[in-house]
Amino acid sequence: MSLKKKPMNGMKDILPEEMRVREYLSKEIREVYRSYGFSSVETPAVEHIENLTSKQGGDNEKLIFRIMKRGEKLRIDEKATEDSLADSGLRYDLTLPLARFYSNNENNLPSPFKALQMGPVWRADRPQRGRFRQFMQCDIDILGEESILAEMELLEAATTLLRRIGFGEFTVRMNDRRLLSLMAEEAGFEASETEGVFITLDKMDKIGLDGVREELLQNTGKEEAVKKYLSFFETIEESPDPLEALSSLLPKEEAKSWVADLALLKANLDSLSDGKSFAVFDPTLVRGMGYYTGPIFEISMPGFSGSVAGGGRYDGMIGRFTGQNTPACGFSIGFERIITIWMEEGREIPGESKKLLLLTEKKLSGELLRKVLAFAREKRAEGYTVSVNKMKKNKRFQKEQMEKEGYTECLEFYADSGEKLLEELRKGE
Amino acid sequence: MSLKKKPMNGMKDILPEEMRVREYLSKEIREVYRSYGFSSVETPAVEHIENLTSKQGGDNEKLIFRIMKRGEKLRIDEKATEDSLADSGLRYDLTLPLARFYSNNENNLPSPFKALQMGPVWRADRPQRGRFRQFMQCDIDILGEESILAEMELLEAATTLLRRIGFGEFTVRMNDRRLLSLMAEEAGFEASETEGVFITLDKMDKIGLDGVREELLQNTGKEEAVKKYLSFFETIEESPDPLEALSSLLPKEEAKSWVADLALLKANLDSLSDGKSFAVFDPTLVRGMGYYTGPIFEISMPGFSGSVAGGGRYDGMIGRFTGQNTPACGFSIGFERIITIWMEEGREIPGESKKLLLLTEKKLSGELLRKVLAFAREKRAEGYTVSVNKMKKNKRFQKEQMEKEGYTECLEFYADSGEKLLEELRKGE
Repeated sequence: MSLKKKPMNGMKDILPEEMRVREYLSKEIREVYRSYGFSSVETPAVEHIENLTSKQGGDNEKLIFRIMKRGEKLRIDEKATEDSLADSGLRYDLTLPLARFYSNNENNLPSPFKALQMGPVWRADRPQRGRFRQFMQCDIDILGEESILAEMELLEAATTLLRRIGFGEFTVRMNDRRLLSLMAEEAGFEASETEGVFITLDKMDKIGLDGVREELLQNTGKEEAVKKYLSFFETIEESPDPLEALSSLLPKEEAKSWVADLALLKANLDSLSDGKSFAVFDPTLVRGMGYYTGPIFEISMPGFSGSVAGGGRYDGMIGRFTGQNTPACGFSIGFERIITIWMEEGREIPGESKKLLLLTEKKLSGELLRKVLAFAREKRAEGYTVSVNKMKKNKRFQKEQMEKEGYTECLEFYADSGEKLLEELRKGE
Repeated sequence: MSLKKKPMNGMKDILPEEMRVREYLSKEIREVYRSYGFSSVETPAVEHIENLTSKQGGDNEKLIFRIMKRGEKLRIDEKATEDSLADSGLRYDLTLPLARFYSNNENNLPSPFKALQMGPVWRADRPQRGRFRQFMQCDIDILGEESILAEMELLEAATTLLRRIGFGEFTVRMNDRRLLSLMAEEAGFEASETEGVFITLDKMDKIGLDGVREELLQNTGKEEAVKKYLSFFETIEESPDPLEALSSLLPKEEAKSWVADLALLKANLDSLSDGKSFAVFDPTLVRGMGYYTGPIFEISMPGFSGSVAGGGRYDGMIGRFTGQNTPACGFSIGFERIITIWMEEGREIPGESKKLLLLTEKKLSGELLRKVLAFAREKRAEGYTVSVNKMKKNKRFQKEQMEKEGYTECLEFYADSGEKLLEELRKGE
């Protein structure tokens, strides 16, 4: 078999220029989240196939990279199936592995536990421009806190981070799965219909109110309910206080406290705002993942389609591992999305050290070469990044190449004059 | 299928305490290596099965986690084999993927290219205490530099790093594959025999000179050659200048320059020494990987068996991808080994920020909760790590748990007195 130069289909090699941005952002993320008391944890990239196919991952379960059993356990015969050949797969998100992690390590973790996870996930999606089959996810989760304090801390930490890395212009949209259900119920839909109703509602951005009406009528046939349901959205939209308007539409007592929680969440975000960011209640926000059970939120930025971050409460998942209900709430920053925007806009990384190139003539060797290395060491102690390279025949091209890498200063050392140059450089200081 | 709490066999969940150490070390590694002009790059975790099984990985090729083809390409029938079912696998090291990376991106990289890679690799090894099937590797490589300058920079950077992270007591052992071959040749072994001779020589640590003699005699039957060969090692060991002694044993002209290179490498390392680290020529150093072509080196530490770091020159590998010879030299720090030592010795991470816990009474909500969050924000701006948690019924246990996480300071806020406490705290400053 011949060797292949390209990475696997849908995956990519990451070059130094992008890596610098990724490392800078990772550092900022860790610093901000750590200051909010989040602790890093890591789970293996490889998960049990049983966990990955347990219906927690929605459509992602169709996109699993399966890993084959090994040795005697691998039985290739006429009875073999895709499932019987695999014992594991690459994780498709960080939420399911975190639930397993928590159930495995609960006794060694404080409660509530504030987790930070940054790591690659894999989905065998159809490759598209800008979407890769291996990509980084960056999640914070608070496990064991049932009150809205969890949502407040998640969103404050995440929006503080966005401001710090220069993505301060955004809108936080928020809603609550329970309010979504109540609205549908109140309009006259059956509990069995709501999931379908939400799928349609989720298309509001694309097909508008009329499109939603048509699809709802087609799918449910309930003219009255559709009419009442959509009037709710109009009432909310027209009101100066959408949360208050929603509250008055829903007679059920719990609705009041859910609405109050969203109001508190919004107030806290508004107090952080510097006039460029907005927190809004969006009654049409659905979010795809079926596991959400309470408040949900998404962050979007002007000029960029879709969301750059999102999350919500998923109180049911950990209980599936432990048998004991554990409230949980998570938020995920679109790491790859932010990297793409950063690279496309050609943003600069603040505070990068100066780069100094020391070129040494090919025949310069022995003691003098060691002295050049010692000089490089001195400059590093001063804060420079220093690379000592052999001079090439095409010195000009070589220097141009290194300039592209950020080496703005260059010194040339020759076998016969290098010693003198070193002396002069030391005197000059 | 039921959910599984434990990670996959041989893999591990990483808890916050260890993650802090891993992140601290990663940061130091990146900083030191970056100051030497190394640039981070990343390759996908998943590699073409053709590349992984191309005989570049030695025994590691037996330990591949194979990933199944997907969709129509997966054909499970009586003709299916382990190989026909897989199109890829998890990388078992970072060197082979780097060679592919370089061949794929050569035109966008400077020459020489100094690469830093930190990332997980996977080997389906038999699980053992302290050895895992997913582990971090941390490699620096210089591609495109044929002179000893590459080795000098790699070893200077790596030993500087070891000192910086408090692992300054070590021995760098070095040798050269070409000198190894010359010695065997000069003693009277055939080229076809040398690989076997080296495998035996590599056991010197364990079985001693007599053991090596016996095994060599058994395997080659060449009494004269074995005698002469082992006398070389005795001569070198007894000499006050082992490199000089080796040089005088090998009449071939190139040997002089290879020896001179090792002497220069040693001199540079000695000039960095602070009396705790040593650079020595070790004629018995072999290193397992078959791909090495020139100087090889290993770092060991007193009190720890085996090596904590190692590397060497492998000028042949990239040419297998590109068809064009590219000199290459790499060095790998035993990241997991260092973490294990760090954790076992209970070392402290320097410069960690103070941690402050703000406990809020359960019924404390609304405006006052927002004020507590604002106070937390002020303390974060002062450099504190601050976590705002709801008070639990068992407050004492809760505080103990958080103390274990490093929260040495705690403030308690109650609904009726919280406002007053906040005022006092602000006045007290």
